[in-house]
Amino acid sequence: MMRTRPLKVALLGCGVVGSEVARIMTTHADDLTARIGAPVELAGVAVRRPAKVRAGIDPALITTDATALVKRGDIDVVIEVIGGIEPARALITTAFEHGASVVSANKALLAEDGTTLYEAAERHGRDLYFEAAVAGAIPLIRPLRESLAGDTVNRVLGIVNGTTNFILDRMDTAGAGYSEALDEATALGYAEADPTADVEGFDAAAKAAILAGIAFHTRVRLDDVHREGITEVTSADLASAKQMGCTVKLLAICERAADGRSVTARVHPAMIPLSHPLASVREAYNAVFVEAAAAGQLMFYGPGAGGSPTASAVLGDLVAVCRNKLAGATGPGESAYTRLPVSPMGDVVTRYHISLDVADKPGVLAQVATVFAEHGVSIDTVRQKGRADGGGEASLVVVTHRAPDAALSGTVEALRKLDTVRGVASIMRVEGE
Amino acid sequence: MMRTRPLKVALLGCGVVGSEVARIMTTHADDLTARIGAPVELAGVAVRRPAKVRAGIDPALITTDATALVKRGDIDVVIEVIGGIEPARALITTAFEHGASVVSANKALLAEDGTTLYEAAERHGRDLYFEAAVAGAIPLIRPLRESLAGDTVNRVLGIVNGTTNFILDRMDTAGAGYSEALDEATALGYAEADPTADVEGFDAAAKAAILAGIAFHTRVRLDDVHREGITEVTSADLASAKQMGCTVKLLAICERAADGRSVTARVHPAMIPLSHPLASVREAYNAVFVEAAAAGQLMFYGPGAGGSPTASAVLGDLVAVCRNKLAGATGPGESAYTRLPVSPMGDVVTRYHISLDVADKPGVLAQVATVFAEHGVSIDTVRQKGRADGGGEASLVVVTHRAPDAALSGTVEALRKLDTVRGVASIMRVEGE
Repeated sequence: MMRTRPLKVALLGCGVVGSEVARIMTTHADDLTARIGAPVELAGVAVRRPAKVRAGIDPALITTDATALVKRGDIDVVIEVIGGIEPARALITTAFEHGASVVSANKALLAEDGTTLYEAAERHGRDLYFEAAVAGAIPLIRPLRESLAGDTVNRVLGIVNGTTNFILDRMDTAGAGYSEALDEATALGYAEADPTADVEGFDAAAKAAILAGIAFHTRVRLDDVHREGITEVTSADLASAKQMGCTVKLLAICERAADGRSVTARVHPAMIPLSHPLASVREAYNAVFVEAAAAGQLMFYGPGAGGSPTASAVLGDLVAVCRNKLAGATGPGESAYTRLPVSPMGDVVTRYHISLDVADKPGVLAQVATVFAEHGVSIDTVRQKGRADGGGEASLVVVTHRAPDAALSGTVEALRKLDTVRGVASIMRVEGE
Repeated sequence: MMRTRPLKVALLGCGVVGSEVARIMTTHADDLTARIGAPVELAGVAVRRPAKVRAGIDPALITTDATALVKRGDIDVVIEVIGGIEPARALITTAFEHGASVVSANKALLAEDGTTLYEAAERHGRDLYFEAAVAGAIPLIRPLRESLAGDTVNRVLGIVNGTTNFILDRMDTAGAGYSEALDEATALGYAEADPTADVEGFDAAAKAAILAGIAFHTRVRLDDVHREGITEVTSADLASAKQMGCTVKLLAICERAADGRSVTARVHPAMIPLSHPLASVREAYNAVFVEAAAAGQLMFYGPGAGGSPTASAVLGDLVAVCRNKLAGATGPGESAYTRLPVSPMGDVVTRYHISLDVADKPGVLAQVATVFAEHGVSIDTVRQKGRADGGGEASLVVVTHRAPDAALSGTVEALRKLDTVRGVASIMRVEGE
C-alpha cells in the first residue's frame, strides 16, 4: 500500500547535523520511501546564512524566514536542529499549530521547557520525537519510552557528554592536566571554542533532566538537576582514583528513592571502579546504564555526538513520525502521571572520597573521625601518610560508607574548621559499586 | 483521555515467563493503565496442566483449550509464551483472524516461518511484536526496526545465547573442560536437561535469522544461517586464544556484503580480542554490536534470558500493542523490501586460527605454506614449536589474513591430506578486529 503524494519535510538549521540529514534524505530516498510507505520530500530549509553554498540542496529550498516555513500549512514534519531556547520554541509550537509534527535534537529546550512542547503537541494532535537530543545515535529515548513501558525503571547512570569524557580519558591515560586535555579536545574538534556548556555540566544536566522525566514518568526540569562540571578535577584526583582501583567520569545519575516516592537527578564527576563497564568508555563515546525492576541491568553504548550519528537518530524519528502521520495516529506523548517530586541533592545517598592535608601529629585521626561520627557518617577506610618532604604535614584519605549527601557536605564543612586540617585537597563521590 | 472498558489479554503459556507477566500485570495494573490509556485485564490463561496451583491467578481464568480462548472474539491481545512451532503458529494465526494482535517470545517460530505470521498479521490489520524473542530484556528489535529505520545497518555481531556464554566463560576463567562447564551450567539452571538447542547453536541461529531479516529489510530463515555449536570447543582452544590475546565466544554474525547486494548470517564459536567489548561479557549475559552507516558502532547489553527480563520485554510490547489498538493503528510490520539474497558460508570473508600437529622435520613449513598459497589464502602469522616430549612431532599455529570461508576450508581439507600433517588440532575463526 504505497501512496505517491510525498510527505513534506521542513528542515530548520543546516549545520553539521542538518546537512547530513538532507544528504541522507537524498542518497537514501528509496529506502526511506520503502520504510515509510510514501516518499518524503525536502520542502524547505531555513538557515541564517543563505549565501553559503550547500552541496546537494536545491538553492530554491533555502529561506531565512523559518517562521513562514513552519506556517506554510503543507508541511508534514518539521525537523528542528537549530538548538537553543528561542526561536526554536516558538517555531516548534507554531509548527504544531499549522499541522506539522516535529523531530527535534534540542536537549536544552526539552530540559528547560519540555512541558510547553509536549502540551502543544498534545493539543494539536501532533508527534514530538527527540531521540537525537540525548546520546546521539544511541537508541535510548525510544527504549525508555517504549521498550521499558511495562517495567519500573529505578536508576539511570551514564556518560552522556562526549567532550568531558574525552578530557577525563586523556587526563587518565596520558596523565594530562585539565587545561592541557581541554586544549587537545578543542584542537581535535571535540570541544567548542566556548566549552562552558560541556565542561560545566550544563549539557549533561539537560540530558539528565530529559532521561529522568521519561524514566520515572514525571516532570524533571533542568533546574531540578544538581550540576557540577569537571573544571576542578585535577591530575591528583585521577591519581587518587587509580590508587582506589577507580577512574573518574562525569556521570549523569537519575534515581528513584528507595521508598519510590521521590526521584533525584544529578550530574557530577565521580570515581567508579575500573571493573565497572562505564570505566572503559573511552574518548568521546557515551554509554548509559538503565536498571529496571524486571529487566535488570541494561547498557546502551555508542557515539554520543557528531553529524552522522545525530542524523541517524533524527531520521529514525522521521520515519516513525511519517508512519504515524500516514496511519492517522500519534506515538507516545508525555507520560508524567506519577508526579513524583524531585528531591534536592542533600537527600541523595552516596559515598565520598576525601583527601585532607592535616598536621602530622598524634590525635589528628581521632579528631577527624569524631567529626564524621558527629554527622552520622560512617567511615569505610582511612589511609594516612606523612609527606615525603617531612614538613610536619600529612595527608589523610577517607572513604565513607553510604550517607545522605547533606551529611557528607556538613562533615566536610566541619572538617575545614578544624585547626589540624590545613586543607581539603579534594572531595569526590564514589559511584557504581 | 482515559477509557474505562478494559483491553482484554489472553495469555498462552504460564511457565517461568508467563507467570511473571501475569504477576506484573496484577502488581503494576495502575502503571499499565496510565501508560496505555486504558486498563488491561487478564481474560484467560491457557495451560497444559490446569491442576497446578498458580499464585495470584484467578483459577476461573485457567483453561486447557487455547484454541477456544483465541477464538473468543473479545480478546484484544494474545501473549504467546508457549514456544515451539505448533500449536503456537496455528494459535497465533487464529488469534489474528479473530481480532487480536499478538505479542510473542517465540524465536524458533519466527525464525522458521516468520513470513506466515507477518502475512497473517498484515492481512487482518493486527500487530505482531516480539522484542522478547531475541536477547531477553535487551531492547534490540525495536531499536533495529524503529530507531535505525533511517540508517543502513551493515553488521550485527553479538552474544545472543546465555547458556553457551556461561559455559565458555567458565572454560576461560576456571580452566574447566566443556563437559565440566556444561554440568555446572545445568546445576545452576543456566542449561536445560537437554541442552542441544543451546550448545549446538540452534537457539542463537534462530535469533541470528530474526536479527538479519530486520537489520537488512529482507527475509532470512533459520535454514539460511550457517550454524556451529560449542560442543567441540576444547580447553586447548581457550588456551590458544589466550596466547593470541583473545577469548572464545559463540557469536551470531549478520553481515551485508561489501557490494551491498547480498547478506550472510552465521553462528559459530570464534576468537575475539580481549580488547573487544564482547570479550568481557561474562556469565549468562548477552550483548549485541550493531554497525550502521550513519550511527557508527552501537552496543546493547543486558540479561539475555530469565523470567523477569523476558517478561519486561513482553510487557513493553503489550503497552505498545494496546496503545496502537486504542489509536486504531498498527506498528511497523514486516519490512523485507530489499529482497537481498542470503549467501552461503563459503562467501563469508573471515580469518582462521589453525593448530596443526606436524612432523618435526625440515621443509614442513614450506609445504604447509604452499597449500595456503595455492588456495589464495594469505598467512598473517605462523608459530612453530617442537613438542616437549621430543617425539618427532611439532605443532604449527597459523593465523590467516581475511579470505573467503570456502578458500579457508579448502585449505584445511588439503592440509589434512599432507603426509607431514599428522592432524588438525583445531580450527577457529577470528572475529571482531
